[in-house]
Order: sequence, then structure tokens, then C-alpha cells
Amino acid sequence: MPDKSEQSLTPFGPARSSFKDAKPLSDDELKLYNQYMSACLYLCLGMIYLKQNPLLKEPLQLDHLKSRLLGHWGSDSGQVFTYLHFNRLIKKYDLDAFFISGPGHGAPAVLSHAYLEGTYSEVYPNISEDVEGMQRFFKQFSFPGGIGSHATPETPGSLHEGGELGYSLSHAFGTVYDHPNLIALTMIGDGESETGPLATSWHGNKFLNPKVDGAVLPVLHLNGYKINNPTVLARISHEELEALMIGYGWTPYFVEGSDLDSMHQAMAATLEKCVNEIRGYQKQARDSGKAFRPRWPMIVLRSPKGWTGPRHVDTHNLEGYWRSHQVPLADVATSKEHLKLLEKWMRSYKPEELFDENGKLVPELRNLAPEGHRRMSANQVTNGGTIRKPLRLPDFQDYAVDVEPGVTEVSSLSNIAVFLRDVIAANQTNFRLFGPDETESNKLGEVYKAGKKVWMADMLPEDADAGNLAMEGRVMEMLSEHTVEGWLEGYILSGRHGLLNSYEPFIHIIDSMVGQHAKWLEVSSRIGWRAPIASLNILLTATVWRQDHNGFTHQDPGFLDVVANKSKDVTRIYLPPDANCLSSVMNHCLKSTNYVNVIVADKQPHLQYLDMDSAIAHCSKGVGIWEWASTNADEEPDVVIAACGDVVTKEALAANALLRKYLPDLKIRFVNVVDLFKLTSHEHHPHGLTDREFDSLFTADKPVIFNFHSYPFLVHRLTYKRKGAANIHVRGYNEKGNIDTPLELAIRNGTDRFSLAMEAIDRMPNLRNKASMVREKLLNEQIAASNYAFKNGIDVPDLRDFKWPFGSPGGKADSSIKETVSNKIGKNAQAAPAAAVIGASD
Amino acid sequence: MPDKSEQSLTPFGPARSSFKDAKPLSDDELKLYNQYMSACLYLCLGMIYLKQNPLLKEPLQLDHLKSRLLGHWGSDSGQVFTYLHFNRLIKKYDLDAFFISGPGHGAPAVLSHAYLEGTYSEVYPNISEDVEGMQRFFKQFSFPGGIGSHATPETPGSLHEGGELGYSLSHAFGTVYDHPNLIALTMIGDGESETGPLATSWHGNKFLNPKVDGAVLPVLHLNGYKINNPTVLARISHEELEALMIGYGWTPYFVEGSDLDSMHQAMAATLEKCVNEIRGYQKQARDSGKAFRPRWPMIVLRSPKGWTGPRHVDTHNLEGYWRSHQVPLADVATSKEHLKLLEKWMRSYKPEELFDENGKLVPELRNLAPEGHRRMSANQVTNGGTIRKPLRLPDFQDYAVDVEPGVTEVSSLSNIAVFLRDVIAANQTNFRLFGPDETESNKLGEVYKAGKKVWMADMLPEDADAGNLAMEGRVMEMLSEHTVEGWLEGYILSGRHGLLNSYEPFIHIIDSMVGQHAKWLEVSSRIGWRAPIASLNILLTATVWRQDHNGFTHQDPGFLDVVANKSKDVTRIYLPPDANCLSSVMNHCLKSTNYVNVIVADKQPHLQYLDMDSAIAHCSKGVGIWEWASTNADEEPDVVIAACGDVVTKEALAANALLRKYLPDLKIRFVNVVDLFKLTSHEHHPHGLTDREFDSLFTADKPVIFNFHSYPFLVHRLTYKRKGAANIHVRGYNEKGNIDTPLELAIRNGTDRFSLAMEAIDRMPNLRNKASMVREKLLNEQIAASNYAFKNGIDVPDLRDFKWPFGSPGGKADSSIKETVSNKIGKNAQAAPAAAVIGASD
Repeated sequence: MPDKSEQSLTPFGPARSSFKDAKPLSDDELKLYNQYMSACLYLCLGMIYLKQNPLLKEPLQLDHLKSRLLGHWGSDSGQVFTYLHFNRLIKKYDLDAFFISGPGHGAPAVLSHAYLEGTYSEVYPNISEDVEGMQRFFKQFSFPGGIGSHATPETPGSLHEGGELGYSLSHAFGTVYDHPNLIALTMIGDGESETGPLATSWHGNKFLNPKVDGAVLPVLHLNGYKINNPTVLARISHEELEALMIGYGWTPYFVEGSDLDSMHQAMAATLEKCVNEIRGYQKQARDSGKAFRPRWPMIVLRSPKGWTGPRHVDTHNLEGYWRSHQVPLADVATSKEHLKLLEKWMRSYKPEELFDENGKLVPELRNLAPEGHRRMSANQVTNGGTIRKPLRLPDFQDYAVDVEPGVTEVSSLSNIAVFLRDVIAANQTNFRLFGPDETESNKLGEVYKAGKKVWMADMLPEDADAGNLAMEGRVMEMLSEHTVEGWLEGYILSGRHGLLNSYEPFIHIIDSMVGQHAKWLEVSSRIGWRAPIASLNILLTATVWRQDHNGFTHQDPGFLDVVANKSKDVTRIYLPPDANCLSSVMNHCLKSTNYVNVIVADKQPHLQYLDMDSAIAHCSKGVGIWEWASTNADEEPDVVIAACGDVVTKEALAANALLRKYLPDLKIRFVNVVDLFKLTSHEHHPHGLTDREFDSLFTADKPVIFNFHSYPFLVHRLTYKRKGAANIHVRGYNEKGNIDTPLELAIRNGTDRFSLAMEAIDRMPNLRNKASMVREKLLNEQIAASNYAFKNGIDVPDLRDFKWPFGSPGGKADSSIKETVSNKIGKNAQAAPAAAVIGASD
Repeated sequence: MPDKSEQSLTPFGPARSSFKDAKPLSDDELKLYNQYMSACLYLCLGMIYLKQNPLLKEPLQLDHLKSRLLGHWGSDSGQVFTYLHFNRLIKKYDLDAFFISGPGHGAPAVLSHAYLEGTYSEVYPNISEDVEGMQRFFKQFSFPGGIGSHATPETPGSLHEGGELGYSLSHAFGTVYDHPNLIALTMIGDGESETGPLATSWHGNKFLNPKVDGAVLPVLHLNGYKINNPTVLARISHEELEALMIGYGWTPYFVEGSDLDSMHQAMAATLEKCVNEIRGYQKQARDSGKAFRPRWPMIVLRSPKGWTGPRHVDTHNLEGYWRSHQVPLADVATSKEHLKLLEKWMRSYKPEELFDENGKLVPELRNLAPEGHRRMSANQVTNGGTIRKPLRLPDFQDYAVDVEPGVTEVSSLSNIAVFLRDVIAANQTNFRLFGPDETESNKLGEVYKAGKKVWMADMLPEDADAGNLAMEGRVMEMLSEHTVEGWLEGYILSGRHGLLNSYEPFIHIIDSMVGQHAKWLEVSSRIGWRAPIASLNILLTATVWRQDHNGFTHQDPGFLDVVANKSKDVTRIYLPPDANCLSSVMNHCLKSTNYVNVIVADKQPHLQYLDMDSAIAHCSKGVGIWEWASTNADEEPDVVIAACGDVVTKEALAANALLRKYLPDLKIRFVNVVDLFKLTSHEHHPHGLTDREFDSLFTADKPVIFNFHSYPFLVHRLTYKRKGAANIHVRGYNEKGNIDTPLELAIRNGTDRFSLAMEAIDRMPNLRNKASMVREKLLNEQIAASNYAFKNGIDVPDLRDFKWPFGSPGGKADSSIKETVSNKIGKNAQAAPAAAVIGASD
């Protein structure tokens, strides 16, 4: 008969374990597992409370406690318990597995295992397996200069921090793609399970192939409560919960209860059942060569929150209630009674039987854990950089677009698709392309020739050919930015490479995820034993300036602002103006490590400017004067026209042409920015130009008319310290909802050629009476163009039809001009430091 | 026997409608419903293709077509069909209902209904119910100067635009809370259903009370494809899909097929079954007075994508395939054959039988739709401002904190909780408080006295009292920022009021949602017939400076940058320095309309400065000199110390005190900013100060040491145009992962008192040799304080223990000082325009 706490686990009666009568463990084993669990939980409490007297060899005194008590007890026991029982199976079946800790702040659980397995001391010799080491291990937890209360990068065996909830399952899927023998044992908090990203990530099983991928074993940890509320999934009926998991495509097994012995037996049996099912499905697919979608096993673990803690304290429930979420006895410093209770509680785990005199785990317990890299805390997958193989990259220069500068029109994305196709072809188990159902729309469909879209759900006959779907593929698409980003993060964290392609306006959906990943990288890069992982590469397209009549909801270039707030050691932002520059930038980003690289390039056909040599030279510097578009680049200009972004570069060039047409004596310098952080001070970002370099490009006192892809404020915040800051006049996108043609949109925001030219004129008081005359002409041209586009609702020839007219007579650039372009752009941009984009050191 | 297309609907055999043999419609009715559907679909095609010849009275010619074809056909038919059949039930049962269009770009469906119901012409008389009006109606769609391809604010009957996918269901729930008779008929796209926010929003049924709330009737529209892929839910088995919906807590009914007559019968029967179930549950709860959680009905509609379009075109599938997602015959301009096919297709709907000679819908069809506000396109809920009742607000001045300036410590949030409690008490059907499980943690628990947390899932005995849960309540908590934000948006869009409270670091999760809502407001405010709705109020707490050992993942104040990019007509950001200012700001925000108001205030106890009169004066101006903290506010200062944010204001005051201690002759001005947009130019934001005003506060040439709550760049981007921009030295948060005490965090970022004072000294070259001496003293103090905090890991007395020492001898402010504060703050801040915060006009 279940005890009272068993009933309290669920409002619907007693616990319902799937294998409640199983007894796979002998009595001796049972004792050992109970003891190992005690050892872990003892360490968890030590981390939360103690800074001295780690083994309680003396009676517990106030000054043994930390002054400020921090950390979370609630989910520790359930996580410790699950981890522990998987160790048994790792040893029995020689499994390659690791652990993802989804519940918030459950770090003590994984830290305790890492310490007991010896990994912690191997990585941090100072935290040794003795009394002194244990004392340091306790004190550092949630303590200044120490480690945080999540599975932070400092935690061996962790590749998922979990500070922000919702991504454990998508990360898990990412790690096991192309790792056929890996099992990601994934604890999901029942609080976490309420988040949107987690709720849809269960569908990852429609994209997992038992033949070529590993397996995810989710353990939904229903401990019933989040911070101050019950959880939704803990308070629906067994029938609804079971249906939900079946509906998500899983086979749920239940482990429910609070009685330790029966729970150990049930968990041992259930995990073994799951492992055998996983191995069975994989064997079937691999032996037959035929993939299929199994209804993979998953576990619902219903155990009390704060399990094994005191059931009641004073008038409150503790074990099994939300009050055990954080520090259960927070007032031990002021309550002598609670201090005694804490001591009694900690001693109830019998540390003297678990650790020897010197504080080391006794050998019969240590034997329960696997050895070497089979320890989940030491699985190399969790330090993905150590197993990362460099990407085999074809020479991107072979994908050069032939350019008649300012005349050729090409879709940069269609071109880079060919390069990406060959990257995929050359890295069939080491690279995947991710996206939320937009890869084809983004003109990257060429990649399917080297790797189709993975689809393990049901297929119709037409899906394979016309639809480019396959069970084995290289492109991962689901209409959830959260999920595909989570997969990509998991994939690169576990040592592989990838790229996310997405519409620019909806990338804000994953602002928070990218921010958390940037934080992970920032910390990881300062941890000696963590090897660098491939950069998180994000290609943004379908950009604001070509949203055509999709309208206002599809206009938001503000992701750059979010990224720019993250650590300068991590963030890189590129806006290549044309196809060859995109190739150069993409090649660089795919080779780089430990960055968040954001590349912005529109998918529509756009004007091309630089042949490959020029593009490489330009991108290497990240910013430069385009001599061929300047009246005389060696001379001090009257005005600088600058641009950053593809569409806006074209308009800026056209403004330049207009000014030359109406004011042939004007000295114009044209500057293009590829690497956004070139604009900022060198102190604020390693790519930043020195003031001398900046002034040599933009001048310190001449008007700069800057046409920017995104919100104009971003340029101002980057350049506010420059000498000529007050002369930098930025045009960019501003929020105002209208249905516009691209030209109208540009005119409304002043980023069109006419507005730019007028602004330039307004900023040059020396022009005097000439100004108003030219201004009027420009205004008339603008009105005519606007009316034409507006009235016809057409594809805006006025925005698209511009050709650079100064290359040679007849408006075309001849070969000598091309030569000029190739040879001189680099030279003229010499003020910028070289190798910022291409250099391997960056 | 099902035809071939019935089979192609699902890979698992024939369609499986729940009521496939039902025949609720007579043959005459069937004919009429077929015709009404034809009329809608004809209009959909007209919108996508035509700019002239709307009724095809002439043979279709190329110049009748729009030059650029835009819009989406794929989901139109299923949506039209569902809407149509609900009209029958609205009439039969006099239902109060409206329609939410979740699938992407399905606007033609709802636009066609709004036009046929006459609402469109009532709202836009120019788009009349005749040939000329229809021609304008067609041309304006996805055309410059016209309307967009979503259910934009211009669409009568819409309160959900759907440009970004994922929020239809959470919006729907928000609208029906406290609207007991309302039914939100909610189409959910099967693409949309893959998003995280949608996937978890099904759980809204655990927060919906049949006694006091209305109902949501979801129709999951499985048309099988998104842009270029099948959808996940369309490609799992019937059994899994059914289990999923049961698991989410719903009773699923299926309507599947492509044969029009049988589908009309099945849909009519199924919708009626659902309506009767909904009314039955509501009656049961209301008659008995006992609420319960029903397993509410929902519908799975499986119909072909592009239903009723051509089955095949050339070699491709069209109807029932992703190729019908957007414009089905995109090349009609170049293919004469396809132009003919389009004409044939449009004529197949027999427009001549549907519309009279003048272009008006024939009366027997018009009779199928409801009248007046019963029309879903004219339901007042969808223009929520028209039914918005003002909030009954207690006088916020009654909640004043007694302040000994610079001495009292109070948690501003504990104080505002009392005010919010009384707001809730006074508005029991008109205001709700939303949050992701953090209300108690955010020290707002007092509100439960006026309204508990709604919880319709299962409860344990302890939940009601200790847990503050109830079936009827006013606080809405689920661990999904997406869901609670969606509920709040739905609640205010439908005419009520609310507030979201959330941890600051995780509010980035809803960047995208808030951005989309801001866009909705920006457009709505320019549409004459849309009445203003309550502002979206977001209270951010658990802020970056008090994350203590929670660590790096919990530090991100960057939401302000995201908001600042949105329209100046919509966005307002407030950082009240203390409790009385928070009350003043909160009162203002709750009264305001059509804004996104962001309020940042930490939850921990903090120093208090202003009594209520002073707070009102200060917040009314939004920025001001604090005379009591300045050496002599009338004099030109040597240095300006400025602060924006609560924690940073205290440190800035302490820096001020340090400077006065070591440099008693120094003339210091202290400026506090509540309303962030005061900093920017008046051209960039209506709250912006003029340059004259700005200079009168901050000077044009003196060093300004600015301590800022968020990333420092935000201040720079706001002030870059100011005359003294180069003299504004901003300290704020920068990304670098460490485990710090709050003091250490402040020191690391230079926002602590010592760093600020040293910076001030460094910026005043006139100090000369005094500087290095004082600097050294400050540095020593800083090191000592830092070591103390660091070593002890305590709650940082050095950050918390500061008291303003200049009030009177003995370090306390006496009553005469208080008087000074009350009377003079206003006067001294006179340069700022009044009534920016409190004024009703703002």
C-alpha cells in the first residue's frame, strides 16, 4: 500500500509506475544505489549551505555556513536519481551517453555526480577528492568568484546551461544528429515543459533517423511545482498526460512514487527497457538499411519536489511542495532549531559511511560509476571542441560571380547556395543547414542536390522528388525558429558545424536564445579545458528593404541591436554588399570558432560590384573606399557617401551618380562597410578602427551621408565617439506602417538615391545657390519615380534598374575599369587594418 | 467511395470525419452555402489578381491584372468555409462570436466575408457594394497605399494580424476571459501549430473558467503544407493527432475531405455539436455555481491546400499541394494559357449568379450572414477600444511611502503591490495581472488578497490557502512568457486592462511579440474607426544589478533597446528611482492608451528619495535636477552626476557624497531621469527635450557622469545629437560572465560609487594635483569594500548600507530638508516640459 506521500504525488490516487513490480536490483545493489544517491544529495546540501566542516566531523555551527544561502534543492534529488541509474546501464551496455539538465538551477545534481566520478578534480585539481577539496567544492558554489547555480560552462559534462528554460530537448536532438551511438539522457523540468520552445521541441522525433542518428531519452521530471505554483503537466490526469506523450509521438513509461527502494527498482527496470528499445530500433534500421520513425521511449518521473528532505517544517509542507524549490531552510542563520534540523537532515545521509576518512568516496560506490570518457561528466561530446573536425571547405573563389561592376545583377543567395551545396557534399556527417521552412524561399534550394530535407514523418509519393524530402538528409526544417536554433546549437556544441538561414524579420523570435548562447561562448572561451567550438552562423535574408507588400509585420532589422549588446569577444556582424563579398564572408564565418556570426544579405537579385579579388581585399579590411565610385579617392572630398548593406549600397551609389550628374565638380568619396564593428572604437570591439583609421576613411570634418541597412541609431551608437560624429548623417529604417513598394519604403525612410543626394546637398553649405536648383531637380525626379512605382504597384524598376554609368562610355564598365576596381580597392582602403574578416587569427 | 483527392489528404487512407453521415442542411441550404463560399473565393481571387474588370463582365485581359501579383491562396478556402458555417450558428443561437485568422497571409478569407457582410463598406464608404467598390476592393489588396496580406488593423473584425505566426490561440484566450458569452472561433494554421508559442498555448484551457469566461473554439486547419514543406501535424497518424489533442485537454472532432457537399454537411454538424457542448458546459457551471474544467471541443479540419483551385497545372500538382500556398498562377502575365485558365477558374464560381448587375451580393446569400454587431466582422470586441471601460483607479497618492530622503529603505514592488491589490479589487471583471510564475517572487503577493491565481487544472487541498490558487481569480500565471503575453494582448485588444510582471532577463523571450504589438498599435492609431485600447504595460523586475549569484544568464537589460527601435508614437520607457515615483508612473501607465509602457523597477528593498509630492513633480517632468543632492542647483556646476534607474541612482548619489567629502569646494549637480526618452531629441520622440532644455539640465560643456541601468550605448544613441554629447560619460552594464556580488558587478561595470567618483575626477582636468590624491583614496575604499564583499559572499552591505549624509547633522534628513525636497525639486527641474508622465493628454 502506498504511503501517504505516494498519494500526494498526484490528485488522482496512488502512483502508477509502468514497472512497479520489477526487481532488477539485488538487495546489495539496492543498498549501494541508495548510498550513492545519499552521497550525491549530501554534496548538494553541502553546496547550498556549507563553507566549512564539509564532512560534519564537528557539530554544525553557524560559522560553517555561508552568509548568503543560494541554490536550488527542489529538482536535485530526481536528477541525481536518474543520472545514477543510467550509470548502471552505461556500464552494462558500454553506452556512449551524456546528461542534459533541463530543470532550472539543478546544477548541484550534476556537480555532485561530476565530483563523485572524479572528473571535477581532474579538471580542477584544486577541488581534490579529499576533505579540503570538498570544502572548496562546497564553498565555490553560488559564491563570488566561484561557479553559478546552473550547469554553467564551468561544469564538466555540461553543454546545456539551462539558466533560461525551454531548450533542453532541442539541444539534445542537436547533439545526437550524426552521432549514431550517442544517447542524450535529457531531464526536462515540468516548469520548463510549459514554455513554448519546449512544448514544440517534442516533435524533434519527426526529424531523427534511427539509422544514422543517435537517440534522445527524455525524462519528464514531474516534481509538481515551479517557483510558486504547481505545474500544468503535474496537474492533469494520467490519461491526458499519457495521451499527450503519445500524441507527441513517444512511448511514455511512468516511474512514480517516493519510497526509495521501490523507486530504485522501478527506475532501473524502466531505463533498461528504454535503452533496449532504443538499441532495438537502431539495430532494426541499421541491419535492414531501412529507416523508419519509431515511437521512441520516454519516461515520466513523478517524484516529490525536494525528495528526501524533511516532509514538514514548522507548519509548512517542505518535501513535495514548492517551498523546497530553492533553499529549503533559509533561516538557519537565525533559527537554532532549523540549524539543528539541517544538521540532522545532512547526517541522515550518513556521510561517514559514504566517504573515507580523507573525504574520498568509498571504492564500492565509486565502482558504480563508469570509467574515463564513459562517465557522463567526461563525455567528450560535452566539450565538443575536442572532437570537432575542421570543415572541408571547397575554395570559395571557385564560386566567383563574373562582375561587370555596377551593371551585373545576381541573387547573392542563389550564388552562395552553390557553395553551400558543395560544403554539404564534402561534409556529409559534419555539417547541416537549418531553417524554419524558408530555405527554398531564400533561394538556397540548390543545396538539396547534396542533401535533402530530413523528414521522418509520413510521406506522400510526390514528397521525395518534387518535395526534396528524405529520411537521410542534410537540411533541417521545421516551422519553429526556437527548435531549429536549438538543434543548431546542440549540433555545434557537440563538435560539428552548421548554418541557420532565416527571414530577417522573425529572427527576433530567438533573441533570447542567441543571447544565452553568446553568454555560454563568452564564459567558455575563458575556461582552459574547453576547446573552441564552431561559430553559431546566422544568415538573415528576406530583408526589410525587399518585403514588398508583405508589409509592416515583416520589417524588422533590429536583431543587430540585440547582438551588438553581447560580448565583443563573441559577436561579429557582416553586411556584404554583393555576391562575391558574401562568399568571402561566408567562408570566413564557416572557418571561425566561438563566435556568433550574423550575416545579412537579401535574397533578391541585386547589383554586383566587386570581382572576387576585390571582394576578398574589401572583406579582409571590412571597410574601404571604393575608388571606382569616388571622384578621386586620393583627394580630400567635399562629401562622403557611405553605405552598409546590399540594397542601401546600391541606392547610395545611385545618389553618388546623381550628384556627379548635377554637380560635376563635386569631390565625392564612396565608402562601403562590410564588417559593422569597424565603425566602433577599437576599445569597444576588437574589429573597431582606431580614430586615425576611421578619420582617414570618413574624414574628421566632412559631411558623411551614411545609408544603413538597419535602424539608424545603431550607427550612431557605434560612432558617437568619433571626432566627426556630429557630421555623420545616417539614413536607415524607421517604424511606420504602410503598404509600400520597396522604392516607396526607401523614400519614406530617406534611404533612396534622391533623398540621399538631397541630404548631401543640404549638408554642404558651400554650394549656396546651386543647391536649391539641384534640390528641385532631384525632388522632381523623386516624385516622378515615386508616382510611377506607386501607381503601378510594380516591381519598382526605379529601385532595380540603376546601372553605374561611369564605368565607360555607354554606361558600361570596360575591362580596364574592372582592372582598376580589382587593383585599387584594396589600396584605397589601406587605412583599415587588414585581415579582419579573412584572417585565420580572427 | 472517396475520390482520389480525399485519399491524398492523408497518407493513412480515406478521410475520417467525426460526423460523416450527418445531413443537417437541406438541399436548398446546401446550394446556398456552396454559393456563399463561391462568392468569398471569387473575391479572394479577385484580390490576388485583378485591378479591373472585377465581375469579369468582359473577357479577361492582361491589363485587368495587377502588374505584381501578391497574396496567399492556400488557406483561404478552409477559412472561408469555417467562417461561413459559424454564421449559421450565430443566427440560429444568437451567438456573440468573432473570428481569429491564424494561418499566415490568409487575409483574403476574412476580407471577403467582411465585404460580403457589408461591414467593409460601412467602414470604408469608398469600397462600396457595387462594381466600382469591388474594383477598388480588389486593387487595394497588397497594393501600394492599400492594405496588407494579413488581417491587419485595417481589417474590420480583426484583432489578430497574424503576420508573425504563433499567437492566435493565446490571443483568443485573452479575449474571452471575463467575456462570459463570447466565443472566439480560432483558425490555427498547421504551419503555425509547429511554433513553440502555439504549441504550449493549447494549455490555456487550464486557465479558462466556464462560469465567468467565454469559450475558445479552435479549428486546427490541416491543409498539409507550409511554404515549401508538409506540416508535422498533417503527417502524423490520426491516432497520434487525436491523442495529442486529448493530451492537451481538448475533445477533438474531425472534418476531413474535399467533396464540397459532404464537407458542408460535416462542418455544419460538427460546429453545431461544438457550440452545444460549449453552451452545455457553461450552463452547467453557471446553473450550479460550480466551475470545473471541461474537456472543451476543438475541430481538426483537414481540407486540401488551395481547395477548389485547379487540381493540376501543367506537370505540377496545385490544389492539395504547397504550390498553392501563395499566388497559384504566378505567370499569367506571360502565359496566355494560364491567363485563360485563371479566367476559367474564376468563372467556375459563377459570379453572375452571386452578384447582381450592380455588383451587390444577391439577397438570398446576404441573408445567410448575421446582422449588425452579430456579424463577426463587426463584433465590437474586435475594436476593443469601443467597449473599453476606464479603469477604476484608487488615488495612488494614498499609497505614499513615508520618506526620509536618502535614508528610508523600502521595496518599491512591495509597495506598488498594495496599489495593484486595490486596482484589482475595484475592477473585478476589467483588469488582470499576468506573469510567468514570478508574481510572488517579485514581491507582488499582496495582490492575491483581491484576486487569486486562476487554476482550473487539478488542485490539492493546500493549493487554495497556502498556494493562493482558485478557479476564479485575477492573476494569470503560466511558465510561458509567450502565453501570458498573448493572453494580456488579447485581453487589452478586446477592451480591458492589464499588466505583465516579469523578470527583466527573460523578457527578451517576447521581443518579437511586443514588436508585433507595437506595430499593430502604430497602424491602429492612424485608423479613424479604431478606438484606443489600454496600453500594454510591462513591469520588469529582478533586474540585472540584483541578480546576485543567479549569474550571467540572468543579466540582460537589453529589452529597452528592442523597444526603443519601435515607433516613437507607441513606445514609453520609465525607470522610476524609488517607490513613490513607481506609484506615479504606474498610475499614469494604467490610465494611458495605445502605448507600450515599459517600467523597470527592482524588487529588492532600495533607498527612497522623494515623498509623494516630489515624486509627482519629478515624474511629471520625467527628468530633473535634484536640488537637495546638488551643491547649489542654481549655479553652473563643475560636474553633473546623472542617473537613470533605481540601483544606479543610489550609487550615483553615493558617488556624489564621496566627491563632496573629498572635494568640498566642488560644484556638483545631480540629475535623475525617470522617462528615458527625455534624453533624445524632440524630433526623435515626442517626450524628447529640446536642446535648450537638455542643456539647461545637463549643461552643454561640463562633464556628465551618467550612471545607467542598462547597456550604456542606449544613452549614447539617444544623446548623440546633443551639444555636449562628447562630454557624456555613461556607465552601465556590459557583458562579461562572472559570479559576482552586486557590488562586484557594479565595480566591474564601473557603475559603483567609487568608479563613478573616480571617473568624475578624471573628467575634470582643472583639479590637477588634487585629483591623484583623491583618486588614490577612492581606490583604496573601493578595494576594501570589494574585498569585504567578495570574501564574505554576503549581501553586500556596501551596496545597501549607504545613507545620504547631508540631510542634517548626524547623517539624517530632518523635516526642513524634506520640505526643501518637496518644494524645490519641481522648481529646479523646470527646464523639462511638464506633464510628460502624469498628463492625461500623453
